Amino acid sequence: MKITKSTISILLLSILFTAQLSAQALKTVVKNAQELDLAIKSAKPGSHIIMANGVWTDVIIKFKAEGTKEQPIVLEAETSGQVFIEGQSTLRLGGNYLEVSGLYFRNGYTPKNTVIDFRTDDDTVANHSKVTNCVIDAFTQVDRDFKDHWVQFYGKHNELSNCYIAGKSNPGPTIRVFLSGNENIYNHHQIVNNYFGERPRLGGPHGETLQIGSSFTSMTPSYTEVKNNLFEKCNGEVEIISSKSNFNEFKNNIFFECEGSLVLRHGNYAKVDGNVFIGNDNSTAIGGVRVVNTGHWITNNYFYKIRGNEFRSAIAVMNGIPKSPLNRYNQVTDVVIAYNTFIDNLIPLQFSVGTNVDKSDVLPESEIRSARPIRTVVANNLIYNHDASETTQIYGYNEVDGVKFKNNITNNKIEGDVDTDGGLTQESIELTKLSDWFYAPTKAFSDVYNGYDFNTIDKDLLGAERINNKAIGAVTFPYKTDGLVSINKSEYGPTWYKAAAPKKSKTIKVTSASALVKALNTANSGDVLEVKSGSYKISETLNIDKAITIKSSSKRQVKIEYTGAKGSALFLMLPKGNLVLDNVALKGNNTQDAFSTLDKNMSIAYNLSVNNSEISNFNTVLMSYKGSFADTIVFKNTEISDCANGIQLAGEDDDKGDYSAEFVTIENSVFENVDKNVLNYYRGGYDESTIGGTLVFKNNTVKESGAKEDSKFLLQTRGIVNLDFNGNTFKDNPTPYVIILWGEKGQKSVNNTLENSGEVKTEQNLKMKLMY
Amino acid sequence: MKITKSTISILLLSILFTAQLSAQALKTVVKNAQELDLAIKSAKPGSHIIMANGVWTDVIIKFKAEGTKEQPIVLEAETSGQVFIEGQSTLRLGGNYLEVSGLYFRNGYTPKNTVIDFRTDDDTVANHSKVTNCVIDAFTQVDRDFKDHWVQFYGKHNELSNCYIAGKSNPGPTIRVFLSGNENIYNHHQIVNNYFGERPRLGGPHGETLQIGSSFTSMTPSYTEVKNNLFEKCNGEVEIISSKSNFNEFKNNIFFECEGSLVLRHGNYAKVDGNVFIGNDNSTAIGGVRVVNTGHWITNNYFYKIRGNEFRSAIAVMNGIPKSPLNRYNQVTDVVIAYNTFIDNLIPLQFSVGTNVDKSDVLPESEIRSARPIRTVVANNLIYNHDASETTQIYGYNEVDGVKFKNNITNNKIEGDVDTDGGLTQESIELTKLSDWFYAPTKAFSDVYNGYDFNTIDKDLLGAERINNKAIGAVTFPYKTDGLVSINKSEYGPTWYKAAAPKKSKTIKVTSASALVKALNTANSGDVLEVKSGSYKISETLNIDKAITIKSSSKRQVKIEYTGAKGSALFLMLPKGNLVLDNVALKGNNTQDAFSTLDKNMSIAYNLSVNNSEISNFNTVLMSYKGSFADTIVFKNTEISDCANGIQLAGEDDDKGDYSAEFVTIENSVFENVDKNVLNYYRGGYDESTIGGTLVFKNNTVKESGAKEDSKFLLQTRGIVNLDFNGNTFKDNPTPYVIILWGEKGQKSVNNTLENSGEVKTEQNLKMKLMY
Repeated sequence: MKITKSTISILLLSILFTAQLSAQALKTVVKNAQELDLAIKSAKPGSHIIMANGVWTDVIIKFKAEGTKEQPIVLEAETSGQVFIEGQSTLRLGGNYLEVSGLYFRNGYTPKNTVIDFRTDDDTVANHSKVTNCVIDAFTQVDRDFKDHWVQFYGKHNELSNCYIAGKSNPGPTIRVFLSGNENIYNHHQIVNNYFGERPRLGGPHGETLQIGSSFTSMTPSYTEVKNNLFEKCNGEVEIISSKSNFNEFKNNIFFECEGSLVLRHGNYAKVDGNVFIGNDNSTAIGGVRVVNTGHWITNNYFYKIRGNEFRSAIAVMNGIPKSPLNRYNQVTDVVIAYNTFIDNLIPLQFSVGTNVDKSDVLPESEIRSARPIRTVVANNLIYNHDASETTQIYGYNEVDGVKFKNNITNNKIEGDVDTDGGLTQESIELTKLSDWFYAPTKAFSDVYNGYDFNTIDKDLLGAERINNKAIGAVTFPYKTDGLVSINKSEYGPTWYKAAAPKKSKTIKVTSASALVKALNTANSGDVLEVKSGSYKISETLNIDKAITIKSSSKRQVKIEYTGAKGSALFLMLPKGNLVLDNVALKGNNTQDAFSTLDKNMSIAYNLSVNNSEISNFNTVLMSYKGSFADTIVFKNTEISDCANGIQLAGEDDDKGDYSAEFVTIENSVFENVDKNVLNYYRGGYDESTIGGTLVFKNNTVKESGAKEDSKFLLQTRGIVNLDFNGNTFKDNPTPYVIILWGEKGQKSVNNTLENSGEVKTEQNLKMKLMY
Repeated sequence: MKITKSTISILLLSILFTAQLSAQALKTVVKNAQELDLAIKSAKPGSHIIMANGVWTDVIIKFKAEGTKEQPIVLEAETSGQVFIEGQSTLRLGGNYLEVSGLYFRNGYTPKNTVIDFRTDDDTVANHSKVTNCVIDAFTQVDRDFKDHWVQFYGKHNELSNCYIAGKSNPGPTIRVFLSGNENIYNHHQIVNNYFGERPRLGGPHGETLQIGSSFTSMTPSYTEVKNNLFEKCNGEVEIISSKSNFNEFKNNIFFECEGSLVLRHGNYAKVDGNVFIGNDNSTAIGGVRVVNTGHWITNNYFYKIRGNEFRSAIAVMNGIPKSPLNRYNQVTDVVIAYNTFIDNLIPLQFSVGTNVDKSDVLPESEIRSARPIRTVVANNLIYNHDASETTQIYGYNEVDGVKFKNNITNNKIEGDVDTDGGLTQESIELTKLSDWFYAPTKAFSDVYNGYDFNTIDKDLLGAERINNKAIGAVTFPYKTDGLVSINKSEYGPTWYKAAAPKKSKTIKVTSASALVKALNTANSGDVLEVKSGSYKISETLNIDKAITIKSSSKRQVKIEYTGAKGSALFLMLPKGNLVLDNVALKGNNTQDAFSTLDKNMSIAYNLSVNNSEISNFNTVLMSYKGSFADTIVFKNTEISDCANGIQLAGEDDDKGDYSAEFVTIENSVFENVDKNVLNYYRGGYDESTIGGTLVFKNNTVKESGAKEDSKFLLQTRGIVNLDFNGNTFKDNPTPYVIILWGEKGQKSVNNTLENSGEVKTEQNLKMKLMY
């Protein structure tokens, strides 16, 4: 055949046609689980399985197939975001070159231990596969105690990208990378461009957003890459990310107001480069990077307003345990901390964090962290504090003798105790503000230290070249003004997803008991019930499963008398329940509770705020059961009287570090004639992952209470870490002790008045059950 | 200029000339240390510094210079092997691209802690540098207790090649690779083509021939390659090689009759591929590979006549300590043992080696090895035993439940207790003998198991392709007949070096005491002094610093009476002393010792063999001091009588696992009227690296002895691991106990007769001081 232009055209056309035909032939739209199964079973390289728009309930997707690099097998939503996976559903992938896209997990939870699993069974993992452009929103277990993960990585070269994931309220890291078995090492997984939305405070350990490996596989080469993600308010626990394997990389992520740290917990040689950590003035719980083990490089990061200490400091370099057991703390060695910028942090560089050499009487020798960091280099960092009184840039809980400081600069005076041998100097630094939280110096400080292998730090935080443009701090000069200088939310998560804006709240006027009950049922979350002055008899429990404010139209002129059954509660706090009472008087018949929770199915935290109110004649003011968790409980300007029990937050009795409420504030209130458990707020089990709860007990009066107290303590706060105990008056309370304070945690009695009451006792080191 | 052939020729010639000129200009011959220093200081890329032939004494070579890849700086012998480094000398290298060649270290020792160091000071390591074609022979410390290394690796990409290294008698690994500090990781050092000659038994820990890393740096990536070396009788301790870092490779080495194992002690992901381990019928101390930790691949290896058990088995897979401390035993996980050949080994595959679950009463919990191997694959191995009665191929000290056996074959019946679930089957296997110790099957067993990533095992032991030529065992079929099938010594070590052949021994006839003294002084090592029947008075100590036999020309007709000073010894055993007595009667005046050692400077072990002799009227028969070490001590057919003390081998009292003699044999001998310390043989300190000494006490008679014994035991053997206690008669000895046996080590009393003597006591678990 003679080849002419037209034959070529014909050839090309027929190739195109064949390609289209084959693509079409490989497209299968499925409408239910059965069709989906069938489509998966007959999938071939290049197959596109399209899930029809709509709600898919109780669907177990086992996506086991074999694609190829050139022709992956795709499972996707007909329209991204319009395929809702609800009920008891789960997705598992097994095989090679698989892609899942556009699914929306909501209104349900997994019946397995994971929502998305990169393996279909023990013998079949996924490789070269990805889940992208999906949402998992509040797809959380109904029971607070039930542990699961939302994404489990197995195999190699898998990807989670452009997903929005938020609202996990139960224990278990949101994302978990597994490394047990040779098929799961050298994984090179990509976790990129995701939007990790709020992970609520968990009130105990196992609330990480991402955990890579475990102590048992901490010797494995992992090479997981976590890049360009936005972590927003990932408050689950003290570790936002727990890196527990080797050679992981964390690059260009933004951690926005996350109450925790990126923790290099086990494993070695992590690269933490070009990340942004943003705190604020109000929180001391927002952390930066916590460092354990060997060989990490922490470079080009930006830390803003990290106002905490110790575990929560911008850079917390820990002490190790000499010859540490596998699951405890190895010594920090061979770490490089270079070219970071610290703006308005409390004390950004803290060393020998976690030292507990003085606790040998309460801890076994194998728990004593006495091994100080060695062979560690801190160089070319820029530390700036607008407040001229903040003059401690570096702090050592032990002697800092194994760290070499080189060419670090700061604007304020240097008054800390750590001798840097000239490695930190004061310079006249001027900053330009580039966003709410991003500041860059107005010139380059180019006298950089060239440490071993520092030439590998060849880019700055914003990607600018460093080698020929030397500058101390995370950005070179002239600086770029795009990229991580501000948060562009559209770059994270699925393009189709926007988190719902909160509805505008409305005020509903209520004038009768039945109207109150009705309004409570019909109100939207966020609404305010304004109750007219007067007396109201309520005979049935009021369920609170949304944000509701009940307030008097004038001060304390609303009196609610509860006539319900013995043992029932006036207000039953359900998951997501958020009740604010203002200017209301509650009265019982001494056999019921004012507030209580469910015992099970408390999937999501509740909040309770009582202000300017009265509570009297109840069996218990607040009865919280084991399965429940409150984020915040507030009693302010409130009088509690004539109750058998006060505020009970002691249901969590497993002694595994869990507790029943994160923040408890009791202020300007009065307790009178409360027989026992005036306040019982408890955490059992020793673990650093748990550094709550937090109790503010301030300017209150407690009188004639504790007559029937079983313990020796008027206020029971055992195991609660943070306590502000200030300005209270205790009068005529018969218990031997008013409270026992935990000295090691800095708990102090300030300006409290004791009249005819027990004493305040301080125990330096609390004996606690080890959890591991 | 017009380019013609002749201009090109001229150009070429002038280039050649310039090159030669420059090469010549860069060649510097140096004759003493000062010139050498100067030459090093002025060295440039391409410099050759030539050390003049001759003996260089007490020379400290600091070879600090900067070569380039194309033009390294070379320090070499004028003639390889003719530059002798003697006295207190050492060589250090620092900088890049340095080469040292042709030096011969002998007759001395290092005044530093190392003979050759790949760093010149704490801040300057060597990179891309090599030491090649050198010899270090018996360059050992004078004091047995002084620890050093002979080659210390720092930096990266360094090489030790074609060297002969032998005769290190003091503690400290011969070669040590250091990994502390980022400049020393990812080292890719090459230890290749070396001949590691005999490393004598050390009698304690720290006698490795090669140690790579330490527990403290066991998390570091090392990548040291140990290839094509010959290890011959490297008997220093239980570990020939101790791999304590990650990603090391051991390939194509021959381990010939080495009393130890290649031990994967700390660190993970070692590759042990294509090595040959050769034992013999006489030794149970020669081992193979001992496995701890995660991810090792042990493939294509050949094990011949490895006749030991437990630590010394061909493949010893250990139990770990759950959540082990850093310096103890991690659990074995994710290990692959595939395509190995085992010929005539006792029980080649042993699992849960080191289990000590039953020892919780004598060991702390953090010492209990109860974690069995998991996720481990044993596949495609060939096990052959010529002895049809050897029917246990696999043994488990605990249940073997974490190991998957696949497609392993053996020739004998399978009678062991381990359930392999069909993973080991009996086949009719025929072998061809290719060398003294190499056997290959006469056909391929091609039904191989294809485990995860097994396609990476693409070559066999002899380098033949595997993928398309499937075969169980270390060699495919048809097999190659060259390479590791036999030992070609010329492929190892320097080309110029041959270990000296032992001199032929001669017999010197002696007829008088003075002639005996004279002959002893003038004799060559290995000579025999044949003493005429008669009586000899010796008044001065006879120093034994070579191999000497003193024998009677007829049975016991030589009577030597020692008249030397009180407290002196008739025979003083010096380093290298090797005394054989035959048919000689020795008599003292009750104030001297028959044999003793120096207290210090016992750099090399001594040996003593007493046969058909009599020893009487000494204060002590053998007095060995702390600094001494005997390889072998023998008393056979000998009568010992009327002595205050017997055989004293208890000088080593540091309790660090050291002991005073490796092998002690007392057989067919009589002890009569020995007041105390009939035998005192002691090892203190608990450590697995020390699994000596060995005592044979057989068919002896001990009577009327121990009258003044301070301990309760007639025979004191505390801490000695191996004991053959058989056929002895004890008569009229007043001590409460004859001996205490160590039950855990299998010590038993066999056919011993006790008449009017103390009892034999067995203690199952000896309480010992932990050494770490």
